[in-house]
Amino acid sequence: MEKISRTRVVDVLKMDCFGKIVNVKGWVRTRRGSKQVNFIALNDGSTINNIQIVIDINKFGEEFLKPITTGACISVNGELVESMGQGQAAELHANEIEILGTADPNTYPLQKKGHSMEFLREIAHLRPRTNTFGAVFRIRHNMAIAIHKFFHERGFFYFHTPIITASDCEGAGQMFQVTTMNLYDLKKNEDGSINYDNDFFGKQASLTVSGQLEGELAAMSMGSIYTFGPTFRAENSNTPRHLAEFWMIEPEVAFNEIEENMQLAEDFIKYCVKWALDNCMEDIQFLNNMFDKELVSRLEFVLEHEFVRLPYTDGIRILEEAVANGHKFEFPIYWGADLASEHERYLVEDHFKRPVILTDYPKEIKSFYMKQNDDGKTVRAMDVLFPKIGEIIGGSQREEDYDKLSKRAEEMGVPTKDIWWYLDTRRFGTAPHSGFGLGFERLLLFVTGMTNIRDVIPFPRTPRNAEF
Amino acid sequence: MEKISRTRVVDVLKMDCFGKIVNVKGWVRTRRGSKQVNFIALNDGSTINNIQIVIDINKFGEEFLKPITTGACISVNGELVESMGQGQAAELHANEIEILGTADPNTYPLQKKGHSMEFLREIAHLRPRTNTFGAVFRIRHNMAIAIHKFFHERGFFYFHTPIITASDCEGAGQMFQVTTMNLYDLKKNEDGSINYDNDFFGKQASLTVSGQLEGELAAMSMGSIYTFGPTFRAENSNTPRHLAEFWMIEPEVAFNEIEENMQLAEDFIKYCVKWALDNCMEDIQFLNNMFDKELVSRLEFVLEHEFVRLPYTDGIRILEEAVANGHKFEFPIYWGADLASEHERYLVEDHFKRPVILTDYPKEIKSFYMKQNDDGKTVRAMDVLFPKIGEIIGGSQREEDYDKLSKRAEEMGVPTKDIWWYLDTRRFGTAPHSGFGLGFERLLLFVTGMTNIRDVIPFPRTPRNAEF
Repeated sequence: MEKISRTRVVDVLKMDCFGKIVNVKGWVRTRRGSKQVNFIALNDGSTINNIQIVIDINKFGEEFLKPITTGACISVNGELVESMGQGQAAELHANEIEILGTADPNTYPLQKKGHSMEFLREIAHLRPRTNTFGAVFRIRHNMAIAIHKFFHERGFFYFHTPIITASDCEGAGQMFQVTTMNLYDLKKNEDGSINYDNDFFGKQASLTVSGQLEGELAAMSMGSIYTFGPTFRAENSNTPRHLAEFWMIEPEVAFNEIEENMQLAEDFIKYCVKWALDNCMEDIQFLNNMFDKELVSRLEFVLEHEFVRLPYTDGIRILEEAVANGHKFEFPIYWGADLASEHERYLVEDHFKRPVILTDYPKEIKSFYMKQNDDGKTVRAMDVLFPKIGEIIGGSQREEDYDKLSKRAEEMGVPTKDIWWYLDTRRFGTAPHSGFGLGFERLLLFVTGMTNIRDVIPFPRTPRNAEF
Repeated sequence: MEKISRTRVVDVLKMDCFGKIVNVKGWVRTRRGSKQVNFIALNDGSTINNIQIVIDINKFGEEFLKPITTGACISVNGELVESMGQGQAAELHANEIEILGTADPNTYPLQKKGHSMEFLREIAHLRPRTNTFGAVFRIRHNMAIAIHKFFHERGFFYFHTPIITASDCEGAGQMFQVTTMNLYDLKKNEDGSINYDNDFFGKQASLTVSGQLEGELAAMSMGSIYTFGPTFRAENSNTPRHLAEFWMIEPEVAFNEIEENMQLAEDFIKYCVKWALDNCMEDIQFLNNMFDKELVSRLEFVLEHEFVRLPYTDGIRILEEAVANGHKFEFPIYWGADLASEHERYLVEDHFKRPVILTDYPKEIKSFYMKQNDDGKTVRAMDVLFPKIGEIIGGSQREEDYDKLSKRAEEMGVPTKDIWWYLDTRRFGTAPHSGFGLGFERLLLFVTGMTNIRDVIPFPRTPRNAEF
């Protein structure tokens, strides 16, 4: 077979130099046809669209074509021809075909369309070969690129906070322990406690639940930073919204107060959504048609509307009025309550009909590091609430006062001796600063319209599941 | 104080609208001057350069200025004035100053310049406030951006491979165990082994040493992918070149053979180096002047020369000739030997005087997944060797033949039943493909000229060290 350098399908489909001989390589989605002519839909992952390969059976012979079944990998040299078919500009009339790899129809699991999501999770190593997961993971890539572009253009620095940590201060959730100790021969101290002197780090270590505290250190020297890395929660939650391993984006900005923090969050998320619409429309349209007919309009809706900014106290009042007017919530609503997803969605979907940034929460239900308001009751927290998703971003202005911060840490059971380094930023050149966290997979649920968080990350880690 | 929206120092220094009133915020590097006038060098992390604040002492009073010491954080409204000083375009004549946070000169650790690197590692939470680490971490950001840009522009998809894994197949190094079991109450099976049924994932789990195998799954469906995430090695190596937690970039490309893999590696690394020179010159120049007078010329050198491509066997011959001619190596050299850093550097620095891509290594010293050459002795491995650094990239064409791959896995002690999912890519639609791994911190050592890998990552994790 003549060696011609490969053109990706996404590029071939844009070409109009009809008559040219090009090479494509990819995986067969379907082969169909008559005794005279066969049509292969070939996909190489570069786009959701297939290139149609037209084959003159007399030229290649039935026997040669037999192993070209769904899932097989082939290389084709062919002439680019203007397509008569609808919705595609070009097709390839095969001159030469090489079969790179077959896929036995009796064992290849992706024979037909319409596999259940549960089944596809069991073959997560093959599911990117489907239209749905190809689309989701191309969108995932594009959202990551949008995130880096957004921050880079605004002078933020990408900052890698540690994954393994010896502190458990954020209190965001249960942690995984990391160890190199021989579990069959654990050394103990005289008091019966485990002697971590033998462990790799010489002390107990865990996987991070958030890079925020270290991100603040960076903001208090480099100005504007963001993290984008994996975080871990060891909660035994088997729900469509929880992963044990997920990716977080956490910007942190020196000198920003909560108003600027809210604006940053709104600009950020709109930038990502606009990027998706501008760069992933074919994939989004596919997901829209397959799973969620309102996906595109929901994305456009977010872009077109300013987010409501509302103090928690006002939010509670609205929810109490709803109850008074006969609306039923599963969980009770009162000042001081942590909002459930049903409450958040009522505000967003029923009352305001647009995204809401809720601020100034009761200090009891928020973390020790949030800036305390003068009322003595609330803190400068902010949660961005989205349709269908509920909370998509959580953040706050941070307490910059050393005394207030230390006192609140101790009150909430965070020993100040363990966070001496964090407190140092308030001892030396403190300043107002703010930040927030976005769960990457939550963003992806919103942008793809997928309903289970296991379906927007390539290899989900959940209780009793660490396959592949 | 009048509220004026903040301008970053990097932007102020580019402004020429002299006479305008602007606000800057940042940390005091130095304050010096006479009885009449004071000069503050102010830095906000956006650039290595400081803005000079000129203060009329009569206007503010000695007493007010007293707390403005090194490390203090201030906000200044002032008039932009063309600077008389060399090397800076603009300075700020202060109208109003607010002290946001003080830094007690008796306790603030970053008083004077010239702290040792060892000391600065102990205060890693403050070291980004120094010129050196500000420069290093701005370069680190820019290298990450360059990496994403390079791959995105070429149609690669960023793919998140799992951090927690239940398989240990790559064999790249010792692993950290991840567990939620209560170490004080470990459940055992009848045969005395630990009962992992109680652990979070229902089986033994660890931190990944490489995303390659999962990356290959993605390449065999999406075409061209890359990973960029943390990886972990539990080796007890206390050297300037080893970290227990570091970041890796691993591209993997369907249909690429080793020649295209070499070209990709060379293009990639040159793109990153060029990006650094184009976007980080002030920071690089600082590091060049402070630590490594040949840094800039070494970076330019890499750009200007094609990498040598040389089979391992020819490399051994050159090294044997060197020994015959009297060159002394610490480690013996013979066909079959794993090259030591001294050997790699001899080829790069003494013999060829340019980067070298060494290929076709003996199969015994390389991993099971590398494509076997027809000679029965070598595999299509490729290592990119760099001046000062030694191996900066390691990669290979992958074995795409199911039978050869399974056989080699078993020979090398990798049970095929544990990698059924990996082998599936060779059962179903296999194709030639290639990839490589770049240690992000190795790249940073090269680009920054730093000599200890602990100084190019914000919070290094090494044996007995997981601070902050």
